[in-house]
Amino acid sequence: MNAATIAPAASRELVLTRILNAPREKLFKCWTRPELLTQWFAPLPWTTPRAEMDVRPGGASTIVMRSPDGQEFPNSGVYLEVVPNERLVFTDAYTRAWVPSEKPFMTVELTFEDAAAGKTKYTARVRHWTVADREAHEKIGFHEGWGICAQQLEALAAKI
Amino acid sequence: MNAATIAPAASRELVLTRILNAPREKLFKCWTRPELLTQWFAPLPWTTPRAEMDVRPGGASTIVMRSPDGQEFPNSGVYLEVVPNERLVFTDAYTRAWVPSEKPFMTVELTFEDAAAGKTKYTARVRHWTVADREAHEKIGFHEGWGICAQQLEALAAKI
Repeated sequence: MNAATIAPAASRELVLTRILNAPREKLFKCWTRPELLTQWFAPLPWTTPRAEMDVRPGGASTIVMRSPDGQEFPNSGVYLEVVPNERLVFTDAYTRAWVPSEKPFMTVELTFEDAAAGKTKYTARVRHWTVADREAHEKIGFHEGWGICAQQLEALAAKI
Repeated sequence: MNAATIAPAASRELVLTRILNAPREKLFKCWTRPELLTQWFAPLPWTTPRAEMDVRPGGASTIVMRSPDGQEFPNSGVYLEVVPNERLVFTDAYTRAWVPSEKPFMTVELTFEDAAAGKTKYTARVRHWTVADREAHEKIGFHEGWGICAQQLEALAAKI
């Protein structure tokens, strides 16, 4: 468990940064209200039929994604940090406070920062426990998938 | 990641319960102040030469244990929940907020409840990500080790 022996954090991390054309309050709302999240969360043609979210440190979430052929995939997680309109951190390492999940795969740190002209610098920093998991996540299309979702998020935030 | 496929929480959990002859405020102090924790934390003849602890949700801790032959073992973790004199939850799944550790092994949930005559019902609920890790922890002497530590904790709390 010596910190020096761990693979460097950077090699286990994936980062997406975008300047989104919406104020951070609206983007944060889209991330934290189920009735909004279900409208943008899955990269189309995937959809998000249901979401239950208890947005507070230690609160649980279950977000159900549906594939184009109708299969449903529930994803459970727990919020670790909630700073309204600024920061949202959650992980799939727990299904609820503090019950370990089947497989701790990732921890997501979202930051929302003011940019010029009512825009927001949106950063999703996704940390994995292993280099192999980071590689697998990259390979199944992290950058493309999260990129599409960021566009869907931006589009919804712009109209609420 | 379907919750239904996970091994039941109970099969991944180890629990130690003791009635300790000290009020919960003092036991909590012994768990959260480095200068006290170093006096009882490791089961003798192991010792705890150093501890750094930032006791708040998201705060990190590094506790160094020393074996009888002088080898040092640093253990890093992060606090998930801190309710003074009642509850303390921490995990080795992170080395600091929110950097995944080499190996998420356990999450510890401590509860301190009033018992009769100034005593405390002390419960340490230790949850693992896998059944194999729970078994390994049991085999290396969880019940004996945590039992000895509970006695050392009680002895220190009684004299502060």
